Amino acid sequence: MLLDAAREVFAESGFDGATVRAIAARASVDPSMINHWFGGKQNLFAQAVLRLPFQPGDFVATAVAGPLDGLGDRLLRTFLSAWDSHPNAFPALVRGAASHELATEGFRDLVTSTILGPITEQVSADDAGLRATLCGAQLVGVGMARYVIRLEPIVSATPDVLADAVAPTLQRYLTGDISAGV
Amino acid sequence: MLLDAAREVFAESGFDGATVRAIAARASVDPSMINHWFGGKQNLFAQAVLRLPFQPGDFVATAVAGPLDGLGDRLLRTFLSAWDSHPNAFPALVRGAASHELATEGFRDLVTSTILGPITEQVSADDAGLRATLCGAQLVGVGMARYVIRLEPIVSATPDVLADAVAPTLQRYLTGDISAGV
Repeated sequence: MLLDAAREVFAESGFDGATVRAIAARASVDPSMINHWFGGKQNLFAQAVLRLPFQPGDFVATAVAGPLDGLGDRLLRTFLSAWDSHPNAFPALVRGAASHELATEGFRDLVTSTILGPITEQVSADDAGLRATLCGAQLVGVGMARYVIRLEPIVSATPDVLADAVAPTLQRYLTGDISAGV
Repeated sequence: MLLDAAREVFAESGFDGATVRAIAARASVDPSMINHWFGGKQNLFAQAVLRLPFQPGDFVATAVAGPLDGLGDRLLRTFLSAWDSHPNAFPALVRGAASHELATEGFRDLVTSTILGPITEQVSADDAGLRATLCGAQLVGVGMARYVIRLEPIVSATPDVLADAVAPTLQRYLTGDISAGV
């Protein structure tokens, strides 16, 4: 089965060393089909090793489509909509990413290329990488509080309440002044 | 040894069920000494089970001392100063907290009482609990990016750069308008 083959090859070769070609050969499928089904190595890793129940790139694409104004709100809402539907998947992801180097490395690559890459491109400023990464840190923090540590009142808060509180943070990271003092 | 006795009793009785008295009896020490050395059950749990290299309550006390104005900046800087000195302790904490229910429960209790409690008290508004928890989520997110996932440029950023970017977020969560739309 393709995901089993992918897990084997990632475990043997590491994230950087594993190639779509090697995984395809192990599973006896054509490499082009892997790109067609999964959109490349990062997403295959996300499904096979991190066991994500969806392709994170799809949600980011939804959020990034549209004007830079309002992107903070769209990022928060797509993040919540994705993970609220799979509340056990976020702790599993964190456990994996914190536990073994392969998962950490692959998770870092996934976040950087699939999630922060499209945001960085959309922001398009000299410090766009820092801005996108600050958004990522804030979203991961919301996920830790809501799904892993389970801190009230964040667990029970509606997406609207969280959007009112957190979307302006994301929007400031994306387009506001982030280098002035307090 | 006291920490071994604490680990045994926490493992047997769970976080809520374990008492300082039972741990003291197992270690053949006086319960008052545990409170004297560790400041209570949460901090003992932090050292014994979460294996924190410092007492988080001490850092929060440092940050909370002083005016509400500027608290966001002090929280961020004490957070970075504590964890930058022990960069491997944050991933270990996250791994533990995401992996077994005892650690999750104890971590939640530690965060709520030792970290968010003093902040909530200092903020002293109707929605102070939400405000403090939003700060906690943002700080945990910075820790995930800097110590666990290791996302650049957050890993290499100086405390000053991060304070310029993130302290205003914390200050807004503490004292700003968090219920208006974007």
